Amino acid sequence: MILPSNRESYGEAFPASARVFVPGPGGVGVPMREIALSGGEPPLRVYDTSGPRDGDVRDGLPLLRDGWIRARDVRVTGRATTVEPGKKDDPLELPPGLARTTRRGNGPVTQMHYARRGEVTPEMEFVAVREGMDPAFVRDEVARGRAIIPANINHPELEPMIIGRSFKVKINANIGNSVVASSIDEEVEKLRWATLWGADTVMDLSTGRNIHATREWILRNSPVPIGTVPIYQALEKVGGVPEELTWEVYRDTIVEQCEQGVDYFTVHAGVLLRYVPLTAERTTGIVSRGGSIIAKWCMAHHKESFLYTNFRELCEIMREYDVSFSLGDGLRPGSIADANDDAQFAELRTQGELTRIAWEHDVQVMNEGPGHVPMHMIKENMEKQLEWCDEAPFYTLGPLTTDIAPGYDHITSAIGAAMIGWFGTAMLCYVTPKEHLGLPDRNDVKDGVIAYKIAAHAADLAKGHPGAQAWDDAISKARFEFRWRDQFNLSLDPVTATAFHDETLPAEGAKVAHFCSMCGPKFCSMKISDDIRRFAEERGLAAAEALEAGMDEKAREFRRAGSELYLSAETP
Amino acid sequence: MILPSNRESYGEAFPASARVFVPGPGGVGVPMREIALSGGEPPLRVYDTSGPRDGDVRDGLPLLRDGWIRARDVRVTGRATTVEPGKKDDPLELPPGLARTTRRGNGPVTQMHYARRGEVTPEMEFVAVREGMDPAFVRDEVARGRAIIPANINHPELEPMIIGRSFKVKINANIGNSVVASSIDEEVEKLRWATLWGADTVMDLSTGRNIHATREWILRNSPVPIGTVPIYQALEKVGGVPEELTWEVYRDTIVEQCEQGVDYFTVHAGVLLRYVPLTAERTTGIVSRGGSIIAKWCMAHHKESFLYTNFRELCEIMREYDVSFSLGDGLRPGSIADANDDAQFAELRTQGELTRIAWEHDVQVMNEGPGHVPMHMIKENMEKQLEWCDEAPFYTLGPLTTDIAPGYDHITSAIGAAMIGWFGTAMLCYVTPKEHLGLPDRNDVKDGVIAYKIAAHAADLAKGHPGAQAWDDAISKARFEFRWRDQFNLSLDPVTATAFHDETLPAEGAKVAHFCSMCGPKFCSMKISDDIRRFAEERGLAAAEALEAGMDEKAREFRRAGSELYLSAETP
Repeated sequence: MILPSNRESYGEAFPASARVFVPGPGGVGVPMREIALSGGEPPLRVYDTSGPRDGDVRDGLPLLRDGWIRARDVRVTGRATTVEPGKKDDPLELPPGLARTTRRGNGPVTQMHYARRGEVTPEMEFVAVREGMDPAFVRDEVARGRAIIPANINHPELEPMIIGRSFKVKINANIGNSVVASSIDEEVEKLRWATLWGADTVMDLSTGRNIHATREWILRNSPVPIGTVPIYQALEKVGGVPEELTWEVYRDTIVEQCEQGVDYFTVHAGVLLRYVPLTAERTTGIVSRGGSIIAKWCMAHHKESFLYTNFRELCEIMREYDVSFSLGDGLRPGSIADANDDAQFAELRTQGELTRIAWEHDVQVMNEGPGHVPMHMIKENMEKQLEWCDEAPFYTLGPLTTDIAPGYDHITSAIGAAMIGWFGTAMLCYVTPKEHLGLPDRNDVKDGVIAYKIAAHAADLAKGHPGAQAWDDAISKARFEFRWRDQFNLSLDPVTATAFHDETLPAEGAKVAHFCSMCGPKFCSMKISDDIRRFAEERGLAAAEALEAGMDEKAREFRRAGSELYLSAETP
Repeated sequence: MILPSNRESYGEAFPASARVFVPGPGGVGVPMREIALSGGEPPLRVYDTSGPRDGDVRDGLPLLRDGWIRARDVRVTGRATTVEPGKKDDPLELPPGLARTTRRGNGPVTQMHYARRGEVTPEMEFVAVREGMDPAFVRDEVARGRAIIPANINHPELEPMIIGRSFKVKINANIGNSVVASSIDEEVEKLRWATLWGADTVMDLSTGRNIHATREWILRNSPVPIGTVPIYQALEKVGGVPEELTWEVYRDTIVEQCEQGVDYFTVHAGVLLRYVPLTAERTTGIVSRGGSIIAKWCMAHHKESFLYTNFRELCEIMREYDVSFSLGDGLRPGSIADANDDAQFAELRTQGELTRIAWEHDVQVMNEGPGHVPMHMIKENMEKQLEWCDEAPFYTLGPLTTDIAPGYDHITSAIGAAMIGWFGTAMLCYVTPKEHLGLPDRNDVKDGVIAYKIAAHAADLAKGHPGAQAWDDAISKARFEFRWRDQFNLSLDPVTATAFHDETLPAEGAKVAHFCSMCGPKFCSMKISDDIRRFAEERGLAAAEALEAGMDEKAREFRRAGSELYLSAETP
């Protein structure tokens, strides 16, 4: 059933698709992308992350979850602003349309908290519709900690989604300006662009100026969960000197971002003082920005990290907004040579310890994973994470399966991502072709998202996720039946597929031709297969019988009919 | 040791590389690509497939193997020509520089034949140098049938290479014109382009006009083995009507191509009459061109395929030229839905039967494999092939791990290719972004080759191939030490890597900067790691001790030194 209201267009990106809505909790529409097909085929509905696209970014998105959030035990804490607390001025004015009331729970308001009480929240219902799962199952997975629904109460624009290995494999796209390049406008556009192509969450990794204002714009326009690495902003506040960081500065930053509506925080609390020396002999040392900042702090102060020593207080803050942990892997390997080493696995054990502490506070948790790992060492990562972190969702960066292809690391890493997704990783952090080289532009973001949609879908197929193969079957059927337009429209990127076809055969007639430029009409195996099948069907015989029975006469008939049919396409 | 003679340039493609030669059999130089590095690092030598590049294509390549071949028990059979035997005229004249004497063995002249007699041929020695293996081991693998050296005695231009799972994983690139598009010039250029980027063999799948002349040009200019599917040309000879094919036409075509110097033939002799009905209920029927032609012939005549019934005679011809079999998988799955089905595995069993017959004749054999296979079903393909085909080398097309991304099938298939390469596949047939959509152009060929170099190298790493990781280690070390130029030059595609970096930081100074545009100077984890390491080193302490000993004073020192160091890069 589809809600009768609006069908939205995807513009040029998906010409034959419409954004439709199936009934969700309390009459809210759950979005799907519906791909229209020809030849009497029913339309195919696929998961949709694109969000409402017809509004003005200065107004932000509709407040889908507003009523659900107000109904909880929350209090109003203030109004959103572009001005970073404590800062006197900010060059950027926030448009009135983006102003939001901010709230805080009078105690835990996390999805895990409700799930453990046996409640199915509207967010869980919404997710259940999206995934085609039973709402009670969604609740049980969240209660058990095997899945998370990152959904800050200050992000009412969110279309809830779930991250867990019983569900579709998700992908994350990173955006964010740096000191060197990029602006707010570009970042909001990157967000919209990434979700159009299928990003399930977006991390804002901004480190440059206007970090607070950039995040505000992004959150107000994001239908997907937004993750951040709060230590980046905390570091800006202390002038970029890691040694000057304090728990207080970090805590204030956390509260600031909780109030803005960030849905999950990468926290490198597993980088302990005693693990730092384990990286000294590595080929590539510490490659995580957050990890290296904490490592430097630990060394400089010769103390345990303030993230680790104040972890319980952090949990107490985050549960009152329902911000999820993404426990960072600050010591992940940055090269094949460093994969699965002592530093990496030492931190993973600590991630497990912290996961259990977060769960004591009803805070949702996922664990970040590597990185650079050769294929034969990937499975060990998944197995150890499942065991040591009690099946909390795993969230990996790739992994890249070789170091030798900068410029193509979306491919080196899609290989590892697909495999680890199959093994049980719940979300894959994308890698763009610019990885190791520069900041991704619009094309890089798209290339990265599509490579990761491929990896995630390949993993869903291999996991046997219900319904995953329907998409493959629809496109393969279209291919076999020479429904070229349907084949293009069912592709992850219809415009590129069409353009590639048209490079060799631009004529409109070629879109209905029973051949293509690869083999030409005479050598088309699909066409011959079709002839074989038709021969059997026309004679009212199961194809198998047609041959097994050994009918010479039938063979002669086929030869006559088939030859005619065949020659009609082209005379050589 | 490098032969003192010439160091050849790769032009713009690999700016810091030189084609150097290490001593091979009888003073012949074995090519390697040597990548010059800075910072006192020794140059890295990697496998090279590019061939001599400074000659005129109208003269063809030097006859590297000529002396080796003449020394064998062979007789002269004629001269090369552009004119297809039996045809009166041909619009294309062969330049005099391409004319070659053609030869035939007076009995078997295959590498397997010599290997079984205990002989180490110059080809085996050449291969041993290329692979860094013992020549006797190469011989034993060839004798056992676990590896092949495709090397027609009429392809003296060849730089011998080996295909087997104890060696580096190889990749094949397909080229070839069709009725619809492309010319001879383009095909020769595609050959040179594909081998420049790393194609280990090239298949000429031409089906259009001038099929004989195109092949002649390609062979005379190819340093890598050339494979063909002879049934395509045989079909042209009977006017494109599969039912009109006969053993005699096919046999004459085989001899014609043996005389030209084709190194391996794809022969779909495993497609048996009784297997055809097994494809009738498939989602995508038969997707192999050769397979569908044979299937149609079998059905039309209601007879067993002439390839199967005349297989021994085929072996007797091929062994007198040393053409290897690539036993085709005519019934490979063309969609996820059809993976690992009865039709596919029935043919694989017959491929095993045919492999053993070929070995009785001392003919070298590899087996072709799928196709479209989801990740969890890939391993079964490798296991069955090893068992049923007695460990003959496996040569797979991808496999594609999902059907939903036409336009990106170099990625969907690189995932499957890397995995099956790790499991033991000896050669991976590339897939370009144009797969399913059109004929690949220059960029597509490059994209396909690079995606497959990634897959093959990732597989080598996972297999633990000796020496494979040296490349990864060199590039990661360069990355960690901010030797940007070295990082670019060590990439599979230095020009693209450089261009990507320069999009954000074009200034020459950025090539030596200790940061990049992704994080900017303050957030560079590599830089912080380096600071940590330097701190330990400067104080003459192992990094581990520096912390474990718990020295507060040292910590203060570090804090002071580190902060200065850090702030020197940029003041926020």
